[in-house]
Amino acid sequence: MSIEEYASRIIVSLDPPGGVEIGEWLERVYTSLKGLVAGWKVGWPLILRWGVERVRSFLASASGVRLLDLKLADIYNTMRSVVDVFVDVVDAVIAHSFIGVEGALAELKKLLEEYGVKLVLVYTMSHPGASEVMDQCLDRIDEVVERVKPWGLVAPATRPSLVSRARRRYGDLVIFSPGVGAQGAAPGSAICAGADYEIIGRSIVASPDPLRSVYGLSASAAKILSSCT
Amino acid sequence: MSIEEYASRIIVSLDPPGGVEIGEWLERVYTSLKGLVAGWKVGWPLILRWGVERVRSFLASASGVRLLDLKLADIYNTMRSVVDVFVDVVDAVIAHSFIGVEGALAELKKLLEEYGVKLVLVYTMSHPGASEVMDQCLDRIDEVVERVKPWGLVAPATRPSLVSRARRRYGDLVIFSPGVGAQGAAPGSAICAGADYEIIGRSIVASPDPLRSVYGLSASAAKILSSCT
Repeated sequence: MSIEEYASRIIVSLDPPGGVEIGEWLERVYTSLKGLVAGWKVGWPLILRWGVERVRSFLASASGVRLLDLKLADIYNTMRSVVDVFVDVVDAVIAHSFIGVEGALAELKKLLEEYGVKLVLVYTMSHPGASEVMDQCLDRIDEVVERVKPWGLVAPATRPSLVSRARRRYGDLVIFSPGVGAQGAAPGSAICAGADYEIIGRSIVASPDPLRSVYGLSASAAKILSSCT
Repeated sequence: MSIEEYASRIIVSLDPPGGVEIGEWLERVYTSLKGLVAGWKVGWPLILRWGVERVRSFLASASGVRLLDLKLADIYNTMRSVVDVFVDVVDAVIAHSFIGVEGALAELKKLLEEYGVKLVLVYTMSHPGASEVMDQCLDRIDEVVERVKPWGLVAPATRPSLVSRARRRYGDLVIFSPGVGAQGAAPGSAICAGADYEIIGRSIVASPDPLRSVYGLSASAAKILSSCT
């Protein structure tokens, strides 16, 4: 995989670093990387610090895949109130599979389908604590994934065996892997384990030169991927 | 339990009904009920529709317990960015226990303690889907609760046996029970099962006369609680 090919598998997590002026920072990251990376992941930190309207307007004009990562994990009535605010300016929405189907993910998927927006479920997370409950309950989570039939899954680059498990079970789902860079996983390692995209935040967005960081990460990834079996 | 005693065990969930002018609606609900109910639960629907600054300013001057219910379920770094925005104007913050301790709830609890803010963990939720994964993983969730030692738990009025389970295991934790009213549980039923507070949303906040609704709910609850064993 070439440097450009790897970069086209990066989703940039747009969580603003401390102390930046958000508008300038986002403009710099976006203009440096658009067309090179696959897309963007937006979550609560950006929404809270920049405001709903500015985030909506950025998303409305952004090119690339737009993932809304609010880690939705509430009853449907509440998730609907939240999703309603962004559903016309995103391509996919991330929710926790842990909350189950009835009264939650079944209704959420139906709502998103009405808007042509895709559902991505968290299979398990990238931090150590995810192995305490979520990893232990993966058989139940698999049942939820099988019933809901989402478009994609989030599986952790930090525990590549779980990316492989998701890939083996769900050949047709798009797998996004967070945990690359600041959280410790090597660039390319999740793709090697079966992910379609690697989600990278701080290593890119907290860099003074996001483009150079993407090239650096991509060069590392190219090495891993050349020996990936 | 008298009507006033029951009312003092209600936490009002301030999720705005569709179509209302938020400022007027909130003023009406708050002035009708302050001093009568125990406190207020604020979540994403209000924050998104009314804006961070107005919600902060409401919370800063609100009397009663102020629960921030963002159903936090992310890695610590992200939860911190979110909590930082509200930590000086709330009394307690609700997070999901299924995200585990390391890299998530341990650090969150420490952060909150620095601000004198309490942590409330979701034990399991009120909708039917919660029985598909969360209820099945309660032994693991219990391990998290025992390690984190939160101030309180959220347990569902809609499945009172789980409120009882939480009460039996955690005699010293404050238990909040959602699911009363619109979601189907009878007022008083969760307190009967061992909860300290019942969280009520739509039945009160979507009512044209919130005070009358609280009295109506409290009268029903008083009946249940008089025969509660």
